Amino acid sequence: MRCAENDIAALDASDPLAPARNAFDLPENLIYLDGNSLGPPSRATLSAVATTMNSEWREDLIRSWNTSDWIGLPKRCGQKIAKLIGVQRDEVIVCDSVSVNIFKLASALLAKSSGAIVVHADEFPTDAYIAIGLANQIGADFRRIEETAGPEALNETDGIIIKSLVHYKTAAVANISDWEKAARQKGVSIIWDLSHAAGALDLNLAVDGAEFAVGCGYKYLNGGPGAPAFIFVKKERASDLTQPLSGWMGHKKPFDFSDDYAPADGIERFLCGTPSIISMTALNAALDIFDDHSMAAIEKKARGLSDLFAEGCAELGLAPDAPPAEERRGAHLCFAHDGAYEIVQTLIKRDVIGDFRTPNFMRFGFSPLFLRYQDVSNAVSILKEILDTEEWRKPEYAMRAKVT
Amino acid sequence: MRCAENDIAALDASDPLAPARNAFDLPENLIYLDGNSLGPPSRATLSAVATTMNSEWREDLIRSWNTSDWIGLPKRCGQKIAKLIGVQRDEVIVCDSVSVNIFKLASALLAKSSGAIVVHADEFPTDAYIAIGLANQIGADFRRIEETAGPEALNETDGIIIKSLVHYKTAAVANISDWEKAARQKGVSIIWDLSHAAGALDLNLAVDGAEFAVGCGYKYLNGGPGAPAFIFVKKERASDLTQPLSGWMGHKKPFDFSDDYAPADGIERFLCGTPSIISMTALNAALDIFDDHSMAAIEKKARGLSDLFAEGCAELGLAPDAPPAEERRGAHLCFAHDGAYEIVQTLIKRDVIGDFRTPNFMRFGFSPLFLRYQDVSNAVSILKEILDTEEWRKPEYAMRAKVT
Repeated sequence: MRCAENDIAALDASDPLAPARNAFDLPENLIYLDGNSLGPPSRATLSAVATTMNSEWREDLIRSWNTSDWIGLPKRCGQKIAKLIGVQRDEVIVCDSVSVNIFKLASALLAKSSGAIVVHADEFPTDAYIAIGLANQIGADFRRIEETAGPEALNETDGIIIKSLVHYKTAAVANISDWEKAARQKGVSIIWDLSHAAGALDLNLAVDGAEFAVGCGYKYLNGGPGAPAFIFVKKERASDLTQPLSGWMGHKKPFDFSDDYAPADGIERFLCGTPSIISMTALNAALDIFDDHSMAAIEKKARGLSDLFAEGCAELGLAPDAPPAEERRGAHLCFAHDGAYEIVQTLIKRDVIGDFRTPNFMRFGFSPLFLRYQDVSNAVSILKEILDTEEWRKPEYAMRAKVT
Repeated sequence: MRCAENDIAALDASDPLAPARNAFDLPENLIYLDGNSLGPPSRATLSAVATTMNSEWREDLIRSWNTSDWIGLPKRCGQKIAKLIGVQRDEVIVCDSVSVNIFKLASALLAKSSGAIVVHADEFPTDAYIAIGLANQIGADFRRIEETAGPEALNETDGIIIKSLVHYKTAAVANISDWEKAARQKGVSIIWDLSHAAGALDLNLAVDGAEFAVGCGYKYLNGGPGAPAFIFVKKERASDLTQPLSGWMGHKKPFDFSDDYAPADGIERFLCGTPSIISMTALNAALDIFDDHSMAAIEKKARGLSDLFAEGCAELGLAPDAPPAEERRGAHLCFAHDGAYEIVQTLIKRDVIGDFRTPNFMRFGFSPLFLRYQDVSNAVSILKEILDTEEWRKPEYAMRAKVT
């Protein structure tokens, strides 16, 4: 049963996160259900990048490495993310991309303890591709386990598993604690990919026993297109690990220009080249909004928004490809439909932005910091119209763009 | 003999590159001799990043991957750089950092033909550190050759050499053609690091027989702090090479989400994760200034500026650690001095920006696009004052910052 209009208004009126929307500067009338793919800029982010460009870079030039602490940005961003995922502040650093960071961690772990690299059959593609690339490079085995396989599928001949915490389609959430216990018994290390989780779920990696993770800066963290990624290594494990992308920024004393490579003591050894300051400035500013809101409140509202959407869709005969309703879920929903690509294009034309995921999924994200319950309700109404009128069958909506 | 003031004015008056300075928005009275370390933003760069932030990202959000061709940025930037280094337009792509790109190329080449990884004893640190990291990872040999060693130092048991075209201290320029011929006879591949060369020297890599190179976006290309780097692979060689950082952006069809990794046909297979759009936008805009000026004119003026500086310094008893005057040289000069760190700090206090390189070098870069002969002449006068008065001996100038 869909909520009546006055119920929707009441939900927004009593929403403790409602003020967060003002921190963003979203286009009017746009219903943005794609913050899971690219979060929008906060006003603070727009302003921070302008300052970095016009003042730090243009005026202070090279001096800003010290005077604006550009050199400290990877650590400062890491400290903010550490809080969001429930680990110690000096256990996270921001650098490179998710793909590169998976490679660093996977290679470092296999150097300590060899074995196969494992991924689920339906793991996010780049995670599997990096696993394949590394396996071919160092002659490790690579194997896939079934989509639904639990930790019992791990073998003692496995070395590591690269695993999304939140599935990029179903939004199913793995139980970190169960996986870690089972993996440890088999001597397997888990690299958690938090890309679809960080900034959306209330995470406590330390409590749950996770030791290694990577994640994306441009989804729920709103760090901007292609924002730098992050990497987490539990402090006790960091100094054991030698990662092969040993560029100068991971050196204990980068500006001593010494002949030998001596890795920094903790998480900084996972740095490689010069950090991408302009992009990292955006992420750094974007993270500040999380100071004002608890991750528990954020996860709760994400669930409320996506439940509201799912209820509306149920009346349209659409059921998400999602875990059972009583289970924990990430902040997005996927619906299979033969016209998925065309429906998403039609929605975009109507200013409701979601995305298409091959082969036939419509995906919608429910970022709780800027979405109102009213937005979600309106999105359902527009979707209903598009389906009722079959507007999506117009040939113009079938043209495929390069990026989907 | 130093030029008289009216000679300096004449040099500026007849400088064909003089109009280029207007494309930048440098702080008044600043003499910026550090464009070799971090180039300044052009006005077009400041404006392009503002557009990406406020319009492409803020308004168009995820749609900009298609509508603003964000997805094509790595190729579009690569095409512009290809022109500057004298290779075909589809042989260069922009991505990641110099360190990461060296790793990709070195690993791909050694997978085809094993052997030791070679660097000069005085190679730029991160190049050597990456060589060490890769050697340890895959069990390859790593060896250093003497600072002054020529291509005859290569052995048939060597696989690759990672070599700066322009030395980061002396600015000595290697002869690509000689090195390539000698290396090929020994079956050794050369990865040229063009970081201190691209945008400063008139390069013709194709003519000279180079097949592989990487380079930096934030020095003479003015792409901004930590700008993405570039990678060049000769077309005929690209499809032979499999690089291990096989993230989704290097896939033939990234958005098909297929199980297997099928690398893109040409240089795009060297992409890895999602490109850092905000930083890459800056580099992309910065490169446009090279459309208006030939690299021959740029190299010629760089030489003119640095010769003028060297002549002035000679009168102060300072001789650069540089190749003989009749040889080709990059666009910077290094001077050894026991008070190098302090003198550089004193110059900075006086608005003359150079940098310090360990253990005792002052380094000054002569970016021809925004420097006037008058700036160089003034810098010499200020340096003379600082040395004459021994102002640099004040204790305040000896405080070491984190980044030098």
